[in-house]
Amino acid sequence: MTTPTTSPIRNGVDTTKLFATLDAIKADNEIADFQFRAKNTWVSGTHSRTTFQDFYGAKQEMAHEHETVMDADHPAVLVGADHAPTPVEHVLHAIAGCLTAGIVNVAAARGVKLNKVSSTVEGDIDLLGILGLSDGSVRNGYQQVRVQFHIDGDADDETLRALVEQSRRRSAVYDVLTNPTPVVIDVVTE
Amino acid sequence: MTTPTTSPIRNGVDTTKLFATLDAIKADNEIADFQFRAKNTWVSGTHSRTTFQDFYGAKQEMAHEHETVMDADHPAVLVGADHAPTPVEHVLHAIAGCLTAGIVNVAAARGVKLNKVSSTVEGDIDLLGILGLSDGSVRNGYQQVRVQFHIDGDADDETLRALVEQSRRRSAVYDVLTNPTPVVIDVVTE
Repeated sequence: MTTPTTSPIRNGVDTTKLFATLDAIKADNEIADFQFRAKNTWVSGTHSRTTFQDFYGAKQEMAHEHETVMDADHPAVLVGADHAPTPVEHVLHAIAGCLTAGIVNVAAARGVKLNKVSSTVEGDIDLLGILGLSDGSVRNGYQQVRVQFHIDGDADDETLRALVEQSRRRSAVYDVLTNPTPVVIDVVTE
Repeated sequence: MTTPTTSPIRNGVDTTKLFATLDAIKADNEIADFQFRAKNTWVSGTHSRTTFQDFYGAKQEMAHEHETVMDADHPAVLVGADHAPTPVEHVLHAIAGCLTAGIVNVAAARGVKLNKVSSTVEGDIDLLGILGLSDGSVRNGYQQVRVQFHIDGDADDETLRALVEQSRRRSAVYDVLTNPTPVVIDVVTE
């Protein structure tokens, strides 16, 4: 365990709490069993709406401080009403947010002060897949996702790059995208 | 091409436009090359903010009708400020929104009127992975994601279930989750 030499708050991360959380989980692995949840309701056409509120973790039912409502839709060119980004765009937000949170946590743990972290994410997709117009050679999802980070911090180039690499190694969303994740679908008709 | 016998709008989907779009892409596959984009900026701690606006598709630079701003954060129990759902929760929104849009489009194309589509999504994750506290046996991402649909429509059980199955077969996000998707990370230090 690293003891911060100055304030325990670094990059907005409470490092005292961060290390205490790690210690608590080391002492009782069950604390680390989490289940995240979302509820989605169809609105009209390709437009649907998700709410997030409760989740399970740290051996108890928990809830976010406030409920979040989030929409998804297709743009007009894809026969939607463009009320919100497409589902595949939300995936780009997820990978950027996960890697960024990881970079900041790792930097805080390593004593690196960050001044700026920004990223642009691009995902290439050939819609012949989802439209069923391919001979089977075109996948439905992204062919490639690219994340470019711009990072400014009080450390040398090598140290800053190592933060990104450690974040990638420990990223939940990076794992979900780059490795197979089982998705079970169940249907109740009414 | 199916010709609707009544209104071309079914389930909020303009089926005339849907079939015309499919015909246009069949005639010129290049129309189907899309690139989606997101820009993320770190705010503080695990809190970051993504904006969505432009994308590429139908052989041209395009833009959503309005810019969308979306945050991600960790809850307090995971040493965040809980300003927004976690990145992994956004993944649950993406899979629900993608499958739902697919169900509705397939239903519209097949002449099935839907009255209700809702879903609950759960994702199990053991944080020993991302925290680096596992012996390597625990993955970083979701161990399993479950989507349960409740569907009411003017069709029999078998027909309604077939809509979900066809949506799954053609879903971009389902493919991204269940199959490996290459993610390339680039870093520019400042």
